[in-house]
Amino acid sequence: MAKEKNVERITNMEDDFAQWYTDICRQAELVEYASVKGFTILRPYGYAIWENIQRLMDAEFKKTGHENVAMPVLIPESLLKKEGELVNGFAPEVAWVTMGGSEELEERLAFRPTSETMFCDHWSSILQTYRQLPMLYNQWCSVIRWEKTTRPFLRSREFWWQEGHTIHETAEEAIAETEQQLNCYADFCRDVLAIPVVKGRKTDKEKFAGAEATYTIEAMMKDHKALQSATSHYFGDKFSRAYDVTFTGRDNTTQYPFQTSWGSTTRLIGAVIMTHGDNNGLVLPPRVAPIQVVIVPIAAHKPGVLEKAGELRDRLAAAGIRVKLEDSDQSPGWKFAQYEMKGVPLRLEIGPKDMEADQCVLVRRNDGEKLPTALAELESAVQTQLDTVHEMMYQKALENLQEHTYEAYSIEEAKQLQAEKGGFIKTMWCGDLECELKMKEEGGMSSRCMPLEQEHLSDVCPICGKKAKYSIIWGVAY
Amino acid sequence: MAKEKNVERITNMEDDFAQWYTDICRQAELVEYASVKGFTILRPYGYAIWENIQRLMDAEFKKTGHENVAMPVLIPESLLKKEGELVNGFAPEVAWVTMGGSEELEERLAFRPTSETMFCDHWSSILQTYRQLPMLYNQWCSVIRWEKTTRPFLRSREFWWQEGHTIHETAEEAIAETEQQLNCYADFCRDVLAIPVVKGRKTDKEKFAGAEATYTIEAMMKDHKALQSATSHYFGDKFSRAYDVTFTGRDNTTQYPFQTSWGSTTRLIGAVIMTHGDNNGLVLPPRVAPIQVVIVPIAAHKPGVLEKAGELRDRLAAAGIRVKLEDSDQSPGWKFAQYEMKGVPLRLEIGPKDMEADQCVLVRRNDGEKLPTALAELESAVQTQLDTVHEMMYQKALENLQEHTYEAYSIEEAKQLQAEKGGFIKTMWCGDLECELKMKEEGGMSSRCMPLEQEHLSDVCPICGKKAKYSIIWGVAY
Repeated sequence: MAKEKNVERITNMEDDFAQWYTDICRQAELVEYASVKGFTILRPYGYAIWENIQRLMDAEFKKTGHENVAMPVLIPESLLKKEGELVNGFAPEVAWVTMGGSEELEERLAFRPTSETMFCDHWSSILQTYRQLPMLYNQWCSVIRWEKTTRPFLRSREFWWQEGHTIHETAEEAIAETEQQLNCYADFCRDVLAIPVVKGRKTDKEKFAGAEATYTIEAMMKDHKALQSATSHYFGDKFSRAYDVTFTGRDNTTQYPFQTSWGSTTRLIGAVIMTHGDNNGLVLPPRVAPIQVVIVPIAAHKPGVLEKAGELRDRLAAAGIRVKLEDSDQSPGWKFAQYEMKGVPLRLEIGPKDMEADQCVLVRRNDGEKLPTALAELESAVQTQLDTVHEMMYQKALENLQEHTYEAYSIEEAKQLQAEKGGFIKTMWCGDLECELKMKEEGGMSSRCMPLEQEHLSDVCPICGKKAKYSIIWGVAY
Repeated sequence: MAKEKNVERITNMEDDFAQWYTDICRQAELVEYASVKGFTILRPYGYAIWENIQRLMDAEFKKTGHENVAMPVLIPESLLKKEGELVNGFAPEVAWVTMGGSEELEERLAFRPTSETMFCDHWSSILQTYRQLPMLYNQWCSVIRWEKTTRPFLRSREFWWQEGHTIHETAEEAIAETEQQLNCYADFCRDVLAIPVVKGRKTDKEKFAGAEATYTIEAMMKDHKALQSATSHYFGDKFSRAYDVTFTGRDNTTQYPFQTSWGSTTRLIGAVIMTHGDNNGLVLPPRVAPIQVVIVPIAAHKPGVLEKAGELRDRLAAAGIRVKLEDSDQSPGWKFAQYEMKGVPLRLEIGPKDMEADQCVLVRRNDGEKLPTALAELESAVQTQLDTVHEMMYQKALENLQEHTYEAYSIEEAKQLQAEKGGFIKTMWCGDLECELKMKEEGGMSSRCMPLEQEHLSDVCPICGKKAKYSIIWGVAY
């Protein structure tokens, strides 16, 4: 009964997906609304997921020579305005500081919406020679974009992210960096978050303000909507020219470096929720779960049970597993429901009967499978099951992605597929903005990306009938 | 000659201590000035020190049950104003956001100068019962205080810090938390940064706005000035009452929890520079040094030298030591000076003669000692030397602290000691603000703290002649 009481707090996703999502965010204590409109608080359990993401992703960045820095959070308006496209893209969303203490500032300062301008300003003062290149920088921080409508993790006025910014001697090196970091994100989603993604290039309409090319990874949520999960941009030397970033090249001439930036955000937590969650709550990928194993003692009042549970906790912790012994006076049923709701990948049950048999029972969150496990092999069995859970979760998400990706050969067909089945609709495309806008207006879908793995579905653009240049994916996006 | 050229970039500390400090900050590439007045950029080498501080300190916080969260960076003015003393203390230094996009905001929002108000607002919405207590929260973020004069690490308009915020069922528990975290900071300074500190309580004049009691750790720099290096505050239930934070207690009555906060900042890097640096540059404590060992190959063109150097690099990295092989085409002399300037604790020299003898030479940054070391024992020898360097650095700093701490029995004596020798001047004190102000005006010193280890120097306050209540330390502070 305790269990039912607990589970009923979360709306069924089939009834109201948006409410299901919000319920999980609140009930699993990931976030709370702040008293400032549009701002959220990352609570300990939500922040612990972000800490694990940061730790694992940061290690990947460092393997390829990136270094972390901290840039000022405020950007003078004049500096922001030097590159026209960027400021036009972000101006409507900027929060402005106009007073310091009791003084009106001579020039208003933008709370960073993104930091290309600050990095360029810094590089213009420290870069001298090609010997200093590449500069491979990253920072973990929060940014503000004054959005009208907000949702936890998906869209909020302040969000937490990493922004990588690099400059290179040649265009080729910068393009290679852009691709490397896109692959880094895709691999991270697969290997850490158990989320399959489609890698592709954004259309000119959808690309980052000021970029020559924007690459994206697109994931499919359980409601078959698309979530842009990270982006990687190539700028050419446009910003270098605008901000006067130069170096003396190998041939002793003054040159402009080529630039990239790439970012991922706390939105990844939203991706995790909507890729893996179910009607009992969160289902967390083991590699970022704050608690990987929760130990629930059964008949905890019986002699030796709590001691045994404590011993198992110590063994798993010593093996480097994030483990919690739930020894409160709540009933086992309440505990089962609570930690299912919180998405803990494995539950370990230990009671008098298990002890007699020198075993315990492991229960997988993702499919409820119960696995009697010899205590002698506990550490390796838990590690194996954590890997198994990860793999099962990835496969299930991959099936969702594959089963809800369709080919279409006309706007009508695309629209009908989206209405009846949802998901990613693949078509050919001539490359014209007009056709992209028509698909939005008539088909109700935005372009997600031109996949890096291009396909040949037909010779013509199904929208205008002209010669097709690319295969493209359309969808309804968060 | 290369070496001399390098070293002359840094002013001698005896000639101009402030310029010596700035030279190190810039030449060791720790920070750079931003184009926004009073703001600084933490460059990769400076940020890497901060990352090590964060990693090690955060682990200590977590050992005692603290959890990280992320609170919004903007605080509505009305929320900030609920506790009068706090807002009066910080109002002159607050940066205000008044516009979001193109809209004038109805209420201006403060860039967080500190987050007591946000935590209280959050607690007022989530706290219900004593079962949820204590709540032990921390966040790593940046804050803004609109200072008039700024110096890298010591005082800047934006700085990076951690702020711990906790609430407890009883006053006793909150006071114990305040003390525990003060000890945590002091131990961290000793064990990680090799900095000895004096622990004590601030006078009412110097305490945090709104706190019942503020505790501090005070370190002594090489110029014998004091640097307040971290603080821990006890608030009683004052903020709980102002922000209506309540819980149902064990006796079923509505109660106010008791609160603490405690913080440390990137100022700790300033403390490291001014505690350990010398006229050749930085001297970094091994446990936070981004590079612990730099390998400089000697006669690198000779067969096998670079290969051997690479092999030693791989061995040390495998042993968990942060090591860099400096294999650029610069001369060994240039490399010696460069990495001395950057404060790398150990240099490892390896050349053909060393290879013949199956040895290398370790050179300690702190005292220049050269230690021929058998290659067979490299990993353990390096680890031992890193520990030795730490210990030697701590002892040297402790001597500085002890040798420049004096007792005084009159303002005149205190003033004369400060003028002639500098340092910490210990006296007795009656506890009156008037005497504290008099010491400031006539003696030129502020109160640093009333040490937790109280001493009895005499029965009377040397300033007014009345009965003494405390022993106190005075100094000239950053």
